Amino acid sequence: MSLARSFDNWHADVKAASLEFVGTTFFLLLAFGGIQAAKAEMNSSPSMPSVLLHDLYISLSLGFSLLISVWIFYRASGGVFNPNISLALFLNGIIGPLRFVLYCIAQLAGGIVAAAIVLALTPGPLLSNTVLADGVNVAQGVFIEMFITAALVLSVLMLAAEKHAATPFAPVGIGLTSFVCHLWGVYYTCGAMNVARAFGPAVVTRFPYSTQWVYWVGDGLGSLLATALYILFKL
Amino acid sequence: MSLARSFDNWHADVKAASLEFVGTTFFLLLAFGGIQAAKAEMNSSPSMPSVLLHDLYISLSLGFSLLISVWIFYRASGGVFNPNISLALFLNGIIGPLRFVLYCIAQLAGGIVAAAIVLALTPGPLLSNTVLADGVNVAQGVFIEMFITAALVLSVLMLAAEKHAATPFAPVGIGLTSFVCHLWGVYYTCGAMNVARAFGPAVVTRFPYSTQWVYWVGDGLGSLLATALYILFKL
Amino acid sequence: MSLARSFDNWHADVKAASLEFVGTTFFLLLAFGGIQAAKAEMNSSPSMPSVLLHDLYISLSLGFSLLISVWIFYRASGGVFNPNISLALFLNGIIGPLRFVLYCIAQLAGGIVAAAIVLALTPGPLLSNTVLADGVNVAQGVFIEMFITAALVLSVLMLAAEKHAATPFAPVGIGLTSFVCHLWGVYYTCGAMNVARAFGPAVVTRFPYSTQWVYWVGDGLGSLLATALYILFKL
Amino acid sequence: MSLARSFDNWHADVKAASLEFVGTTFFLLLAFGGIQAAKAEMNSSPSMPSVLLHDLYISLSLGFSLLISVWIFYRASGGVFNPNISLALFLNGIIGPLRFVLYCIAQLAGGIVAAAIVLALTPGPLLSNTVLADGVNVAQGVFIEMFITAALVLSVLMLAAEKHAATPFAPVGIGLTSFVCHLWGVYYTCGAMNVARAFGPAVVTRFPYSTQWVYWVGDGLGSLLATALYILFKL
Repeated sequence: MSLARSFDNWHADVKAASLEFVGTTFFLLLAFGGIQAAKAEMNSSPSMPSVLLHDLYISLSLGFSLLISVWIFYRASGGVFNPNISLALFLNGIIGPLRFVLYCIAQLAGGIVAAAIVLALTPGPLLSNTVLADGVNVAQGVFIEMFITAALVLSVLMLAAEKHAATPFAPVGIGLTSFVCHLWGVYYTCGAMNVARAFGPAVVTRFPYSTQWVYWVGDGLGSLLATALYILFKL
Repeated sequence: MSLARSFDNWHADVKAASLEFVGTTFFLLLAFGGIQAAKAEMNSSPSMPSVLLHDLYISLSLGFSLLISVWIFYRASGGVFNPNISLALFLNGIIGPLRFVLYCIAQLAGGIVAAAIVLALTPGPLLSNTVLADGVNVAQGVFIEMFITAALVLSVLMLAAEKHAATPFAPVGIGLTSFVCHLWGVYYTCGAMNVARAFGPAVVTRFPYSTQWVYWVGDGLGSLLATALYILFKL
Repeated sequence: MSLARSFDNWHADVKAASLEFVGTTFFLLLAFGGIQAAKAEMNSSPSMPSVLLHDLYISLSLGFSLLISVWIFYRASGGVFNPNISLALFLNGIIGPLRFVLYCIAQLAGGIVAAAIVLALTPGPLLSNTVLADGVNVAQGVFIEMFITAALVLSVLMLAAEKHAATPFAPVGIGLTSFVCHLWGVYYTCGAMNVARAFGPAVVTRFPYSTQWVYWVGDGLGSLLATALYILFKL
Repeated sequence: MSLARSFDNWHADVKAASLEFVGTTFFLLLAFGGIQAAKAEMNSSPSMPSVLLHDLYISLSLGFSLLISVWIFYRASGGVFNPNISLALFLNGIIGPLRFVLYCIAQLAGGIVAAAIVLALTPGPLLSNTVLADGVNVAQGVFIEMFITAALVLSVLMLAAEKHAATPFAPVGIGLTSFVCHLWGVYYTCGAMNVARAFGPAVVTRFPYSTQWVYWVGDGLGSLLATALYILFKL
């Protein structure tokens, strides 16, 4: 590769990473806003609130935020918004190492900025930290996160990376996959499937919980599992 | 431009604005009807009602009313139904100044007519005014409205104004964006994202609240923020 | 028209009407099943049930039953399933008088059969009659039904009768229109928008309510309003 | 057929069945995870939980798990995930006898593996068994299952097996059909529509209920009814 070509790629990578920063902030701003509303209502409700309704509300908020954010951004930047998806794209050779590193930085920064904006714009403390439910041990937490992250990453690889008649509608499939995975995950692990989603609120609230590592390990394993399944499909 | 050409445009602009009036009335009639049902149920419920369910019901009602109204009308009139989207289309040169003014008048009038019809057809007072929740100050209200309006306006610019394979399905993406933004906004600001939606019920109920200006300032800033992001994407 | 051609049409009309009977039974069987579940749960709940959740459940059940029924049947029979839509198709010259009459008979019969099957397959009495809510007078009932029926009929005329890139997805738009209209209508009128949906349970339960005529008048006016709007769009 | 050709088919059949095993495990893992969350919340709730919300949550979980699983897998394996759909495909000559047998084995095994993983990853016993509600006799159970299974099978035959403009979006229609059928079925029979979904949890929990046969008979009759309707449409 000539130096000029390399510089061109560097320029394109920085531009794409900048859009990833804007897009991840956009996605998580709407998602954390919905979570804040759901948890604020639960905390203020004089009667016993319904955990199931709260979980459904959050699943809709996160799943459909992702759906519309990817739809709006993906012809401009790819609309990845998730270091775990970036990792799988890198492992499958769809993006290069420089773009992978820049995307991860942009996505983690976007998560922090989104969490900070929601903290500033709504009354009370930030309520979007991810924690394990009572009775769920860390091994269970890691493996639930692994399976749901793998499902989300696989939806990106099969619906967006592969080209076919329904590819322009990949954002719908990806967003609905996130929604379904949350219906399982929110109750047990808060359903991150994305270290940027777990990391942003943790930074803003100064890491009040000790289980942040569960999301880095579990979601990382999910990227690997999805990559293995994708290679299996290609055989 | 010759005088004849100018007259042609004038004729087309008036026709399009007339359809915008019908379409905005259609959209907000269904939306205000759903809000009326949700709030009437809350007010009449002997047990403590769930605020979260009420917010979800209203988000579905407004988001999907917009989705189907845009789908039904947008090949006939453009299906804008929102002065804040009209403003962004004007700032980006997609519609001219005359059409912009006519659209705003038609959309504000549609909001008033829709609110009046719902008042006539359902028992009790009209319940669709937009107000800030307890604990939300006007600065927070303005900026929440700014962000969610920007998201909605950006979805129109990226999905409908830009031409690509998924453009015929832009109404689905626009409606789901409204739905997601409501999941955050309904709890804190009632989630207008549209001065016609805030203005119509306020006129019919004779402005019982002093915070109507929040929606004009916040939603107007949202049009500007979305326009800035759209220009950034085009660089 | 020659006698042979007329006989051909007669044959095609009878075949299409037979499929309409099967399809309307299919649509309303799933819809009445969902209503039965929702109302049975409300009646058996020891605590105060949520009317809003019940209304949302029924809106989803009716809207999405229509969505998938139209999707499955519409290349075979047209997937109309509704005498009020048949009327609008006849008034706009899309179907002839013989097919209009056969469709109405098939659709009303389908509503009766669907109601009878749900009565046989579930414990207790049939719970899917349409009635006006307390405080809603018959004039309000007629005009709410008129507006929501017009919205549904207009969605069929604009999304399915008109040919364009999104026409193969018309069932999605039509089903979501029914869903949105129910979010307003279920609380006030049970949201029929279709005399076959109001008539079937009334026949099976021997007309326990005196307001059946509201649905025939209101929904019929809705067909006329939608036809008028459609002609306006075509000018 | 030459021996070489037959061996080729055998090879393709085994590969497709392997993917069916992975895909059925994927689909039912997400679905059983959502059911586990819904039922765990109901069991632990100190106040009277809402059965209707629980039913809606499970309908969303199963319907949208199927939607996204079929979307992700169906260009790789066909995305059947259901012995009752396999049976209908075999009866209509779309798959051969060997593939039919291999698919059924793969799908039943996938159901067992999915149930075992959810049992391992979540606290407490497995909660996804299918049982008849109080007051529903076995004849009612068999015929409700027959009708909803027929609807699901028919959606596959009409939307995916038939080729037309909306075929790439068949997974959306099939998933929404499952969702609608669950809105009726969950309350009365738990809504299996798929012997693999009923069999997997029953194996893992060692058949605590005596009505497992209802799902084999009812869902099998559903495959036959859908096949009969499909032949009728083709006349």
